[in-house]
Amino acid sequence: MQEVLVKDLYKKEFADGDKITVSGWIRTIRGSKRVGFIELNDGSFFKNVQVVITSDMENYAEVVKYPISTTIKVVGELALTPKAQQPFEIHATEIVEEGSSDADYPLQKKAHSYEFMRTVAHLRPRTNTFYSVFRIRSLAAFAIHEYLQHNDFVYVHTPIITSSDAEGAGEMFEVTTLDMNNVPKTDDGKVDYSQDFFKKETNLTVSGQLEVEPFALAFRNVYTFGPTFRAENSHTGRHASEFWMIEPELAFADLKDEMDCSEELLKYVINYVMDHAKEELDFLNENVDNTLIDRLKATAGEEFAHVTYTEAIDILEKADVDFEVKPYWGLDLESEHERYLSEKIYKKPVFITDYPKEFKAFYMRANDDGKTVAAADLLVPEIGELIGGSQREERLDKLEARMAELDMNEDDYKWYLELRKYGGTVHSGFGIGFERLVMYITGMENIRDVIAYPRTPGNAEF
Amino acid sequence: MQEVLVKDLYKKEFADGDKITVSGWIRTIRGSKRVGFIELNDGSFFKNVQVVITSDMENYAEVVKYPISTTIKVVGELALTPKAQQPFEIHATEIVEEGSSDADYPLQKKAHSYEFMRTVAHLRPRTNTFYSVFRIRSLAAFAIHEYLQHNDFVYVHTPIITSSDAEGAGEMFEVTTLDMNNVPKTDDGKVDYSQDFFKKETNLTVSGQLEVEPFALAFRNVYTFGPTFRAENSHTGRHASEFWMIEPELAFADLKDEMDCSEELLKYVINYVMDHAKEELDFLNENVDNTLIDRLKATAGEEFAHVTYTEAIDILEKADVDFEVKPYWGLDLESEHERYLSEKIYKKPVFITDYPKEFKAFYMRANDDGKTVAAADLLVPEIGELIGGSQREERLDKLEARMAELDMNEDDYKWYLELRKYGGTVHSGFGIGFERLVMYITGMENIRDVIAYPRTPGNAEF
Repeated sequence: MQEVLVKDLYKKEFADGDKITVSGWIRTIRGSKRVGFIELNDGSFFKNVQVVITSDMENYAEVVKYPISTTIKVVGELALTPKAQQPFEIHATEIVEEGSSDADYPLQKKAHSYEFMRTVAHLRPRTNTFYSVFRIRSLAAFAIHEYLQHNDFVYVHTPIITSSDAEGAGEMFEVTTLDMNNVPKTDDGKVDYSQDFFKKETNLTVSGQLEVEPFALAFRNVYTFGPTFRAENSHTGRHASEFWMIEPELAFADLKDEMDCSEELLKYVINYVMDHAKEELDFLNENVDNTLIDRLKATAGEEFAHVTYTEAIDILEKADVDFEVKPYWGLDLESEHERYLSEKIYKKPVFITDYPKEFKAFYMRANDDGKTVAAADLLVPEIGELIGGSQREERLDKLEARMAELDMNEDDYKWYLELRKYGGTVHSGFGIGFERLVMYITGMENIRDVIAYPRTPGNAEF
Repeated sequence: MQEVLVKDLYKKEFADGDKITVSGWIRTIRGSKRVGFIELNDGSFFKNVQVVITSDMENYAEVVKYPISTTIKVVGELALTPKAQQPFEIHATEIVEEGSSDADYPLQKKAHSYEFMRTVAHLRPRTNTFYSVFRIRSLAAFAIHEYLQHNDFVYVHTPIITSSDAEGAGEMFEVTTLDMNNVPKTDDGKVDYSQDFFKKETNLTVSGQLEVEPFALAFRNVYTFGPTFRAENSHTGRHASEFWMIEPELAFADLKDEMDCSEELLKYVINYVMDHAKEELDFLNENVDNTLIDRLKATAGEEFAHVTYTEAIDILEKADVDFEVKPYWGLDLESEHERYLSEKIYKKPVFITDYPKEFKAFYMRANDDGKTVAAADLLVPEIGELIGGSQREERLDKLEARMAELDMNEDDYKWYLELRKYGGTVHSGFGIGFERLVMYITGMENIRDVIAYPRTPGNAEF
């Protein structure tokens, strides 16, 4: 008796009458006195297999009353059903209960709100929607690794606990082992961090970029892919306190090179997911966002647009639209402006380049105009900013001058500055917010619904 | 003029006399008045390319004095040198300085101690040893993803910030946004966590296992691969405060299944690294651990041993060895016992199974003897414990009884217990300490030397 996976039933050749065993969970069950039907999912595949049970089976009366989500082992015969909706079914000869389910199982057949689903984050992956989302999330993560590794990028695990602040701003979580009930103080009344675990104040990283740059100067092409944190009291559907970022860094590469790389990577991921999650995308397209597949195909097939910030402001100023915030040169673009550009003007992903230095990080390379830096943000329809990249300032004197302008303490960045002292080079990199990417590929609109156990202000359940 | 990578020079066909351009860093340079030799590394490959410069070059006098680590662009002609040590060299016609290097570059040619290298963690990947270690680390990470993804495991990003403690023990780092200078207190004088970011006390995760289990009951086979944290004041070469773990979880799988899976995964990773990092392994074998390649080949080719804890104690009791701690049934094995078993008795990786429940986690499945649990630790020569796995207790009543025995609060694990209420099943999983694995594959003896920027008590630099 062959124990098989439902995935293999769909993908491999099995013949009518083959004796098989499958194990899985009851998704739906209905039956009369004589005959019953179970939709069984075994986790290996999006689709269920239909199991037909009849009163010939010794424990039929018991089986037909099993609650949803009961774990069962089915022994039976495969029956090809070319005329039915599904290509085959299993005629059960024996059913064994492997794990019972209480009748109060919270995910009964009726539809639940996403809000409710978040309260049962340990059960929601068993639903079609979240099965699709989390399988696509996994495939997208792997596609990123595969693309980068096959292009000889070296994966670097930059530290999570850090004593530096990569963005020079950003609200951070503090990490400590001090007794919060009785924080030790120095003679002048300040927290005595010499007694803390690392003997200094430490935080959760907001970006691995500064720490990955040194590796680009050794391996040429490198990347991080790890969790990052923002202690921002933000309650939008696009912000989480804990999220994953991919940060590739390329030596001997300028802004155009990094934009090309990010575009190619994004297309690779989309194609990979379309190749490996057809059933899931079909489901999401039908039930969550019916523009999804068209949008993904378009993105994978089209050249992204490019426009400078200055040109973009010009377009926005001339637009016949009543923006809530009137655009002007020097304005940090709001969501409404970004959406207008990507959804109305370009109708596809667009790189906005060469932003005013005032609202970009200190390490971005100064352009010759003295006003802008070699930065590029990729805006995509529906999501907004998906990728942020820049060429890095490789000229020591310019970098030091910018840090002085921003009142930064050079001592805190001694090692970072040394990268410009000992064989610096033109180099560039970008960061992808992984959850934003998953939202783009699944059509889900709330970041809480693409994270296994989302962390947001006031929420750290499970 | 073709701009090429050194990797491609070694791997592809280039003809004698081909005009090429390469960019990279000077590893060594020496020269007389007429002729000089540069060993150039461009980051794409372990090996350097030799660049020959002559006084015919306009800026020869300047070039020959470039300090180590200067970034240069070389324009020249490829010359095949079948009789020399290296298969080819580049006869430079032009050299442009892309980034200068100060003469006080800390990694001059002479050998440095690993201790010193840690103080220049931003520069050490430029050395042969650390280039090898960190490239192998990257390849090993990818091999793990590739093996698991190709076997349909779904990658789940379990939370880093958590309000639970997976092991029921373990010293943890606290995560907070409270003002440490002025911690808010409740009326009864305790820390007022309702004012903290998550409105409760939160910590850094010690394991994603509890959080990944729910996904195994939806997707069948799943895994985590992320950072974990231990606030232990441990100063050994095998412990870090921040390290990465891989935690696969398999539904419909018992202890034997999970051991088989971990053995196959480990062999896959070793074979992958041997296939993709030949030059790096040769270097490490020659310079760090000359048993390395033999050991890796043996591990990839042999069946791992299996022994129960009870049998192992019997072997240890009968051993003609003067252990510092005398072995007896009920002892949590010390490093000396583990090494004796893996290095003297089995001389290969060995699974020790069925440990006394007292020193294993609450979620491990009780064996029928009432004394032991279905756990399996893989011990490997030189390293000790590399993988820890177990079958999980799927029987709700047994799990609740064990938690009561350990005085655990059921309310904190309500969702975890629900996995046994709503369609539980036999399931098992294991955890691999990623840094230990990298140590095993590289021969490095100190965990600080396989982590980009190690975090240990008192150390959170960079």
